[in-house]
Amino acid sequence: MNAPATFHGFNPTTNETLEPAFVCATPADLEQACAAAEAAFDLYRETSLDQRAAFLEAIAAQIMALGDTLIERAVAETGLPRGRIEGERGRTVGQLRLFASVVRDGYWLDARVDQAQPERKPMPRSDLRLRNIALGPVAVFGASNFPLAFSVAGGDTASALAAGCPVVVKAHSAHPGTSKLVADAISTAVAECGLPAGVFALLMGNERWLGGGLVADARIKAVGFTGSIGGGLALVKIAQARPEPIPVYAEMSSINPVILLPHALANRADQLGTAFVGSLTMGAGQFCTNPGLVLAQEGPGLEAFLKAASDALEAAPSSTMLTPGIATAYAEGVSHLAQHSAVQSVARGAVDPAPNRCQPALFVTDADSFLSDETLGHEVFGASSLVIRCKDLASIRALISKMQGQLTITLQMDDADTEDARFLLPTLERKAGRLLVNGWPTGVEVCHAMVHGGPFPATSDSRTTSVGTLAIRRFLRPVCYQDLPDALLPAALQSTNPLGVPRMVEGKIV
Amino acid sequence: MNAPATFHGFNPTTNETLEPAFVCATPADLEQACAAAEAAFDLYRETSLDQRAAFLEAIAAQIMALGDTLIERAVAETGLPRGRIEGERGRTVGQLRLFASVVRDGYWLDARVDQAQPERKPMPRSDLRLRNIALGPVAVFGASNFPLAFSVAGGDTASALAAGCPVVVKAHSAHPGTSKLVADAISTAVAECGLPAGVFALLMGNERWLGGGLVADARIKAVGFTGSIGGGLALVKIAQARPEPIPVYAEMSSINPVILLPHALANRADQLGTAFVGSLTMGAGQFCTNPGLVLAQEGPGLEAFLKAASDALEAAPSSTMLTPGIATAYAEGVSHLAQHSAVQSVARGAVDPAPNRCQPALFVTDADSFLSDETLGHEVFGASSLVIRCKDLASIRALISKMQGQLTITLQMDDADTEDARFLLPTLERKAGRLLVNGWPTGVEVCHAMVHGGPFPATSDSRTTSVGTLAIRRFLRPVCYQDLPDALLPAALQSTNPLGVPRMVEGKIV
Repeated sequence: MNAPATFHGFNPTTNETLEPAFVCATPADLEQACAAAEAAFDLYRETSLDQRAAFLEAIAAQIMALGDTLIERAVAETGLPRGRIEGERGRTVGQLRLFASVVRDGYWLDARVDQAQPERKPMPRSDLRLRNIALGPVAVFGASNFPLAFSVAGGDTASALAAGCPVVVKAHSAHPGTSKLVADAISTAVAECGLPAGVFALLMGNERWLGGGLVADARIKAVGFTGSIGGGLALVKIAQARPEPIPVYAEMSSINPVILLPHALANRADQLGTAFVGSLTMGAGQFCTNPGLVLAQEGPGLEAFLKAASDALEAAPSSTMLTPGIATAYAEGVSHLAQHSAVQSVARGAVDPAPNRCQPALFVTDADSFLSDETLGHEVFGASSLVIRCKDLASIRALISKMQGQLTITLQMDDADTEDARFLLPTLERKAGRLLVNGWPTGVEVCHAMVHGGPFPATSDSRTTSVGTLAIRRFLRPVCYQDLPDALLPAALQSTNPLGVPRMVEGKIV
Repeated sequence: MNAPATFHGFNPTTNETLEPAFVCATPADLEQACAAAEAAFDLYRETSLDQRAAFLEAIAAQIMALGDTLIERAVAETGLPRGRIEGERGRTVGQLRLFASVVRDGYWLDARVDQAQPERKPMPRSDLRLRNIALGPVAVFGASNFPLAFSVAGGDTASALAAGCPVVVKAHSAHPGTSKLVADAISTAVAECGLPAGVFALLMGNERWLGGGLVADARIKAVGFTGSIGGGLALVKIAQARPEPIPVYAEMSSINPVILLPHALANRADQLGTAFVGSLTMGAGQFCTNPGLVLAQEGPGLEAFLKAASDALEAAPSSTMLTPGIATAYAEGVSHLAQHSAVQSVARGAVDPAPNRCQPALFVTDADSFLSDETLGHEVFGASSLVIRCKDLASIRALISKMQGQLTITLQMDDADTEDARFLLPTLERKAGRLLVNGWPTGVEVCHAMVHGGPFPATSDSRTTSVGTLAIRRFLRPVCYQDLPDALLPAALQSTNPLGVPRMVEGKIV
C-alpha cells in the first residue's frame, strides 16, 4: 500500500511551505462524507428551529474560541493583514449568528395555509398547506479570497446549514490549515449539539477529481461555489450531466462598472479619484466586487479624475496576493492591457521586490475600442481597472447594455445628475444584482436586503444571492401537503401554529 | 417567392382536418416577436400594480367574451368533453384573476429595507433595499393536455405576465384554432390597456426549429414548458448551450404513486378501487398527475382492491385521446406492459372502434420486478396504471426511495395507519412536490399553497411550482439598491412606501 498523498499550506508573503502536511482525501473519504451526509439529512432537516439556530451559534462560538491560532494561520496562508482577517472573522461569526436569527424567525419556511372549503361549488376544495424543506446534502467550495467568510464556515455553509442541509466542504488548497481549524470547530459544535457527525464534513486535497467527484455524487443535491469562471462552469457542466441534474450557485466573474456622472465629476473629481483607488487597491484588489471598469464622459472632469487616481495609485502601498498563481494571473492580465494597442497605461503602483506582490494598475481606453475587443471586458483579478472615455450619456448606456452581467454597478452622482441617473437605471437593473449611488462596490454588507448575485456570468443563477439572508432560499424547495391530518403535518403547518411562525393564510401574511 | 407554409387543426374524435389553415411562423416572425418583447420589457415591467392587475383581468374578460366559439373549437381540437373545457376555461380565467390579486398585494416584490446606520462601528452601514424585478421576456410552450389552462393564456403565461415579463408563446400544434382565439383575446386586452403590442406574441407552426429558435434567442430570459421528458430536456439543453444560459421550467414526467396502507385496505378496498379508477380514467388519463402506480402490501385487502378496480375499469366509458400521436404512444406503452413477462394484465376497459379512443388498462407486478426494470417506472400517458404487490411497509419505503422524482405521492390511510404514514413521510417528502392523504392526485387546485412541481424528472427545477401563486417567483430576480436617493428608488422601496406593499424592515415583515 502506498503512503497517502499529502500537501502543504504555503505562505505567499515569504514563499515558504507551511507545516504540517495535510493528507489528501481519497475516494473512500469522499464516499464516507456523502454517505454520512445522506444518513444525517432526514434528522438534521427536522431539527427544531431553536436547535438549529443554537447549532449555528455554537459554530460561531467555536470559531471565536480558536483565538489567535486561527488568525495567525490565516494571515500566514493568505498574505492578508491581521486586521483584515480579524474583520473577516467578525463577519463570519456575524453571519452565522444572523442565520441563527433567520432560522428562529421562520420566514424561510414560507408556510402557507389554504383551508378546506367543503361547501365550494362545483367542487369542494381540499385543505392545502405548503412549507419549504431542505434540498439535501450540499457541496460547498471554499473561495481563496475569503479564507473565513467564504470558505469552510462561510456564507454558503451558513445558509445551507440554516436551510437544514448537511454540508460537505471541498477545502480550497490555498488555505488548508485555516480550513482544518474551522472544520474542527464546526465538528466540535456538531458534537456539542448532539447532531449526527454527517451534518458536516471537510474534504482536503489538491487534485481535480475530488471537487468533480463531489458534485457528481448522487447524494449531493446542490452546490455553492465562489471562484473563477472556468472553475464555476466546469462544476455546472458536471452537475447538469448527472442523471439527476442539480443547481449550482457559482459566483464567478464581475468587473463592477463605476459610472461617473458629469456634475459629480465637475464638482469632486479629485475626491472621486482618491476614493476610487482606495476601493481598487483594498486587499490587493482581490474582491469579487473590485471596481475594474470606470465609465465617464470625456472632458476635463474625467482628466482631473485620472490625475487624482494616478497620484493615489502611485502612492498606494503594495500588498501580497493570495497565491503565486493569482499573482501570475494578475501580472498576465495587466500585461495584456499594457500591451494592447487601444489601451493606454495611466499609472502603476510602486514596484516591490517581495514575492507575490500586487503592483496596482490603471488603464484608459475609449468606448469603441472596448466594444470591439471582448477581452477588454474580462476580469483581471487584483488591483487593475480600465477607464473608458465615452462620448456622452447615451453611449455609456449603450455600452452597459452590451456588457455581460455584473455583481454591481455604481453611480457617482450629484443632485443635478438625477435625470441622467434615471435615464440609466433601467439598463443598470438588467445588468447587475446591486446598484450603488456614491459608494464603492467593495464591502458587501451581510443583511436582509443584500444581493450578491447578478446575471450570467456574474453568477450561474441570477435568481439568487450568495450573501445576505435571502441566500437561504437557494437550498430550499416547496412541498404541498393536501388534507394531511394535523398529527402528520409538520409543526409549522399544524392548525394551532405551535411554532408561531409567520404564515400566509388565504394569501395574507398573519 | 414560395407560398407560406400552413398547417391545420385536427379533430381526433372524427379524424378530420379542421379549417381554416394557419400560416406557419417564419424566422422573420420569430425575430419580430422577440424584438417587440424586448422593446416592451422596460415599460411593461414598471407598470403600476393596478395597471398590471387590470391587464390580467382584461385578458380573463376577453377570454370569456369569446363565448361558445372558444368552447366549440377547443372541444373539436382536443376530443375533450364540453363540460371539461368549460371547467378548464373557468380555471384559466380564475388563475388570471388570482394573479391579478397577487400583483396588487405586492408580496411578490419581496421588498426589503435595511436602513443606514451611519454611527455603526467599526464601519457605518449603508442604506440597503431590495425588490424583485422581472427576468425579461419569457417563452411559453403550450401543453396539449390543457388547451386553455396550460396553453396560450395558461399558468405559465399568467405568472410570467404577473411578474412583469412579456411573453412569447409557441402554440401547441394540436390546438391551433384554440390558441389563435385566445391569443387574439390577449392582444385585444393589450391594446385595451394601452400596453405596447410586444407584451404578448403567439408563434404558430409545426416544425422543430421554431421552439428551439425561440429558446435560443438572446432576448428570451426564461422558458415555461409542460410536456414530454424528451421535449423538456431538449429545451433545457438549448437553454444551457446559450452564451447566457437561462432557466427552463419544464414539467415533464410523473407516475404519481398511490400507497394503500393496511387499515385503509382492510376497511374500504372496494371503495378505494372504484375511486381510484375514477381518477385514473378521468380525461382519458391525460393528466400530469394521473395515478400511474399503486403500492400496497400483498394480501386479501389488495386482492379486493384489484377486484373492485377491475370491475370499475371494465365498466368505464371510453374516451377520445388528444391526438393520434398520443393515442398511438398510449397503445404502445400499454402493449409494453401487457407483453412484459413480469407483469400481469388485471383489466382493460371496453374496446371502442371509434378513432383515437383510450382503452383503460390496469396491470400488476411485484416490487422486485419493478426495481429490476426501469422501463416499468416510465410514464404511460393515458389511463394506464401498474399495481405493485409489496412484502411489507419497509419494502414500500425502499421502493419509493429508489424511484425518480414525482409531482405527487398519495397515501390512502385510516387513523390506525398513522404510524405507518409517519414512517413513510420523510421519504415521500424527498420524492414529490405534493403529498396527499385520502384524495386522488388528479385535480390541481390553483391557490397559494399549491406545489405542482417536484424533483427531477417530474420537473427540471424542484425549487419551483408551475401551478399556484408561488409560480410567479420563477420569473423574478432580486436587485439590491444601496444608498439610492428616494427620488431614484422604485416606488416599492421609497421611504414612505407609497404603494403600501408589505416590506421586510430589519428582518421583520411590516
